[in-house]
Amino acid sequence: MTNHDQTVGARGEAAVLAAILERLAPSSRAIIGPGDDAAVLDAPSGRVVATVDTLVHGPDFRLAWSNGYDLGWKSAAVNLADVAAMGARPIALLVALTVPEETPLRLLTDMAEGLRDACAALAPGCAVEGGDLAVSPTLTIAVTALGVLDGAQPVLRSGARPGDVLALAGDAGRAAAGLRVLFDSFRDATGTPIAIDESSLAPEERWALGAQLRPEPPISLGAAAARAGATAMMDVSDGLALDASRMATASAVTLDISASALGGDPATALAGGEDHALLAAFPSGGTLPDGFRRIGTVRERGEVAVLVDGAPYTGRGGWDPYREWDATQG
Amino acid sequence: MTNHDQTVGARGEAAVLAAILERLAPSSRAIIGPGDDAAVLDAPSGRVVATVDTLVHGPDFRLAWSNGYDLGWKSAAVNLADVAAMGARPIALLVALTVPEETPLRLLTDMAEGLRDACAALAPGCAVEGGDLAVSPTLTIAVTALGVLDGAQPVLRSGARPGDVLALAGDAGRAAAGLRVLFDSFRDATGTPIAIDESSLAPEERWALGAQLRPEPPISLGAAAARAGATAMMDVSDGLALDASRMATASAVTLDISASALGGDPATALAGGEDHALLAAFPSGGTLPDGFRRIGTVRERGEVAVLVDGAPYTGRGGWDPYREWDATQG
Repeated sequence: MTNHDQTVGARGEAAVLAAILERLAPSSRAIIGPGDDAAVLDAPSGRVVATVDTLVHGPDFRLAWSNGYDLGWKSAAVNLADVAAMGARPIALLVALTVPEETPLRLLTDMAEGLRDACAALAPGCAVEGGDLAVSPTLTIAVTALGVLDGAQPVLRSGARPGDVLALAGDAGRAAAGLRVLFDSFRDATGTPIAIDESSLAPEERWALGAQLRPEPPISLGAAAARAGATAMMDVSDGLALDASRMATASAVTLDISASALGGDPATALAGGEDHALLAAFPSGGTLPDGFRRIGTVRERGEVAVLVDGAPYTGRGGWDPYREWDATQG
Repeated sequence: MTNHDQTVGARGEAAVLAAILERLAPSSRAIIGPGDDAAVLDAPSGRVVATVDTLVHGPDFRLAWSNGYDLGWKSAAVNLADVAAMGARPIALLVALTVPEETPLRLLTDMAEGLRDACAALAPGCAVEGGDLAVSPTLTIAVTALGVLDGAQPVLRSGARPGDVLALAGDAGRAAAGLRVLFDSFRDATGTPIAIDESSLAPEERWALGAQLRPEPPISLGAAAARAGATAMMDVSDGLALDASRMATASAVTLDISASALGGDPATALAGGEDHALLAAFPSGGTLPDGFRRIGTVRERGEVAVLVDGAPYTGRGGWDPYREWDATQG
């Protein structure tokens, strides 16, 4: 279906960059935005938070399931969440794309619009301020996200103290339920991904799928948690149980999670990844910032890192749904 | 020759990251270095310079010619140069690697050492402060470089004024001569890259090869140029003539380059890429900072962007040496 004249290879780097920048440059908030050797950003508080994460075609997404807009959106959202998890306010993204020559130009312009819109929706004031485009056999999207602390101290994984309240903002298990919809409903007999037909889905399946393809992590609540005195915080990307164990280890505590606080499917909430919720610890006795809900308690370090209702967590640990997939499919 | 137990796939992400961090973490200068959701960097002047660039196996390097250490070094150097070209001092790199599962762990630990050593040698105080590791069919190295202006104004491409002195710091044509050595001397009869045997080379060939594989751009001279009042500056990565035409267009001037200032092989100096020299314009009548040499004059905009000895430049424009190569080779 691709018009060959509209591929990256046929159009050439300059034309492709121009089409992308046309969509991104108007949103720039930087002192110097895209176009020079580097961007120049305002960091008024004198501290900058910086993180990078790559989405790789195959392990991280399938073009049969994700359109360019969704890919752009998701690649922004997951990196904005890492900035938020430090208690910071995102100010800029840099996007390094590697794309096969046969990639349709449209995929990249849609991606630019998804990146732009995710910034506008999730982190107003943040925009794509720079990037790089290279030809490669494999489509990858490496997004660097930068943020500022506005005078607050960064909130690390290592600060949770026994007695603190354990709280969560954002979804738990919804993105994993959405991935299950993709695996169960949109593969052919050989296991190859096929196009999504949302009209075939129940409302709750559509709701879950939205979180998988176009997540909306609670970015602004990261800075809110810092202002409210959060003692520890992290982005929940690999499943609540696994990420909680990381916070517990970094803080030398045990986290006791209440299954009843995790909604109707606690097993999926504990094991499922890609929600990009914010897991945080707060001093007891205070009021949680709006958007956070209590899901457990920080205890003295015991034998295990994570308890569920007081008992060692025995469910799935890691989160790598595509691990056994054939990268040549979809 | 690879010990299978020592591949990325066999060792697993946690062990690979630990081996990389072991080499990088001691160099960290950040408030919060690698290991949390994001790094936290000190940006005392309240402005941050940010850029990203990706090296892709095939288009940008060949493993037959570049070892891990050289790859790490080069991926640091080319991005540090973009920060320097804004007049800034580099403070941090973030490195996003995508690697095939069969990649030897040793390649990545060597790369970490090359990144570390390039920072120490070219931009003291700068270090790798974060990153990401993902499995992909294609080896890529996306490096984000961050810098600070220490109170100086950023030096853009667009500020050159008629009458300014055009000056260069760093090599012109040396990296291209090094690439020619690779193409001429280290391919087999089918054109496939073969291992380098430096003992077969003349001293000047070895000298050129060093700049191609392990470039040493004059990073500290970027901030020095800003302090000396440079009106425009940019990193010369695609050849002096092409990059000069970009500065000329951005500044709405014509740049007149003196061939006699370009050494013994002006044609290669003008056309050859990957030197990562700094091209800058300075007000006339002043003294150039040590390390810069005069190579021409900024003139009122004429019919063409770049003159050589007063005549329109007619040599090679672009720079894409691998363009016609088969990406499956080497």
